Amino acid sequence: MPTKTGSYIAGDGEFTRDQRYIATRVTADGRDGFPVEPGRYRLVVSRACPWANRAIIVRRLLGLEDVLSMGVAGPTHDARSWTFDLDPGGRDPVLGMERLQEAYFRRFPGYERGITVPAIVEESTGRVVTNDYAQMTIDLSLEWTAFHRQGAPVLYPPDARAEIDEVNAVVFADVNNGVYRCGFAGSQAAYEDAYGRLFARLDWLSARLEGRRYLVGDTITEADVRLFTTLARFDAVYHGHFKCNREKLSEMPVLWAYARDLFQTPGFGDTTDFDHIKRHYYEVHRDINPTGIVPAGPDLAGWLTPHGREALGGRPFGDGTPPGPPSAAETVPAGHTPLGDAR
Amino acid sequence: MPTKTGSYIAGDGEFTRDQRYIATRVTADGRDGFPVEPGRYRLVVSRACPWANRAIIVRRLLGLEDVLSMGVAGPTHDARSWTFDLDPGGRDPVLGMERLQEAYFRRFPGYERGITVPAIVEESTGRVVTNDYAQMTIDLSLEWTAFHRQGAPVLYPPDARAEIDEVNAVVFADVNNGVYRCGFAGSQAAYEDAYGRLFARLDWLSARLEGRRYLVGDTITEADVRLFTTLARFDAVYHGHFKCNREKLSEMPVLWAYARDLFQTPGFGDTTDFDHIKRHYYEVHRDINPTGIVPAGPDLAGWLTPHGREALGGRPFGDGTPPGPPSAAETVPAGHTPLGDAR
Repeated sequence: MPTKTGSYIAGDGEFTRDQRYIATRVTADGRDGFPVEPGRYRLVVSRACPWANRAIIVRRLLGLEDVLSMGVAGPTHDARSWTFDLDPGGRDPVLGMERLQEAYFRRFPGYERGITVPAIVEESTGRVVTNDYAQMTIDLSLEWTAFHRQGAPVLYPPDARAEIDEVNAVVFADVNNGVYRCGFAGSQAAYEDAYGRLFARLDWLSARLEGRRYLVGDTITEADVRLFTTLARFDAVYHGHFKCNREKLSEMPVLWAYARDLFQTPGFGDTTDFDHIKRHYYEVHRDINPTGIVPAGPDLAGWLTPHGREALGGRPFGDGTPPGPPSAAETVPAGHTPLGDAR
Repeated sequence: MPTKTGSYIAGDGEFTRDQRYIATRVTADGRDGFPVEPGRYRLVVSRACPWANRAIIVRRLLGLEDVLSMGVAGPTHDARSWTFDLDPGGRDPVLGMERLQEAYFRRFPGYERGITVPAIVEESTGRVVTNDYAQMTIDLSLEWTAFHRQGAPVLYPPDARAEIDEVNAVVFADVNNGVYRCGFAGSQAAYEDAYGRLFARLDWLSARLEGRRYLVGDTITEADVRLFTTLARFDAVYHGHFKCNREKLSEMPVLWAYARDLFQTPGFGDTTDFDHIKRHYYEVHRDINPTGIVPAGPDLAGWLTPHGREALGGRPFGDGTPPGPPSAAETVPAGHTPLGDAR
């Protein structure tokens, strides 16, 4: 599930993720009452959140910025909701709301599950349409095709879907959610089980990626987007805060080169905000970091070093092209990324 | 100060170490009433504690095992005291005590400061003689000379003392105690100040050690012992638990090679118990690790890799010789060290 407010469900010490989401979707045929339409919806994210970061990346790779606007919540939130504290007056300038919770309540008064990002909100009514992060990026690829930019990559190609789905399933269980299972384990045994599965899967991914540039086929796909947002947070947060510390990502040569390759690809590193990432986890999770102190490290310069993965071949964007630079309004601040002002 | 039970003193968010210790010393002339005498005293340690680990190393390098016995407290302790929970019946077999606190109370009824290791206790009376960890290792070198083994190294040579003292002072402030100042900082500003000083000093040490094998002169000295016990705990504990995370030790090539060189030298690695180290910090400091879960990492195999520092020359033991292997009773269990059963 997406990063949410509220408590985490645990049983027998194991962290369990609530995976029930709002089932309506924005589709080309509008069968749920929410047809794809330029200017009708707003994607609400936090740059801190790995699940929301997926949607930010896919929206940008596909060039949907002008048809699907984006609201960015601050990196921290209170017990009730993500808040628009980065915006002037503390309100999202389009939705006019202080808290994302309002969009959930407009659709479902008294909504009791987590107020999560990413969420797609209908701008005219302020109602949340969906918070199903896993379906959301697939729908951006398959339902919004009429509005993709010229040269947009095919992130979920028909003949590779079975393999992408298969990879995504194990990466979700052991890696994307696996780091949370380490960090929020309620017992030593549950933690050690999660840790074992996480690093076994990272070893498996490392072997898979040793001789091939991307996870499935020879181009970037949905599978790479999903693995990337976890890897980007690995050394900055999961290694220490979630005790995922067999090694740092930077000590796993194949995965580290793979992650740097993606980071240096337009759409990935330029949507990654390490300041928001670190502040979110360390300031919000007082249950595992009572002081709220945010580590000053790690040194991020390594993300920009040569990765050498071009030697493996591959065509990052297939028959397409990379996206141009992000708009000024959507550029991650220089101090929040090793990309700095050099862009 | 040594690792202690009880609260840490803080003011303006800064961690401050109580450095008032029991001032009596065991000396050759017995001027404090405690003359050096074989079989009279017991060194009480925890293998977890970096300050106690110094005394374990020096005792072993100098070959004092047969004249100064050693009692080993368990890695965790309660609010009152280190306890002898590793021993049969939970009592130190020589002192007959369950808690080190008893030795402090026998000397000073109602003693109110921290019950710390290392401590030297008079066996016949069960009274603590000293817990002044900094003086203690110097005294092992200078006061116990009559009982040093044949070939014992000179760890505090007269003509190098000024330089050793100078190095020790900055290493204590910025590194040995600096990691605690990071981990127990009560504010973001205090943490960042400690972090900046720590890594600036590690950079300084790295530059100093790039072209020379040891910190002072061309042999192992007291200065190396003091730096080593902090470096040995760096990746296992301080990097994550204390947020000392600009890099891991294993990502600082000179210091990492220096630390491995010492680790592979008799007396250093063979007195390092990573199980006790990790359990102590992560289980005891519930204020910064409320769950008490102990990380499974890091992978320790790297400690045994070649370090290449022999190329810098140096004579580890000067005109002396390395100590033989530790006795069976004092050998760190195979599962607690990368040395394993191969010794």
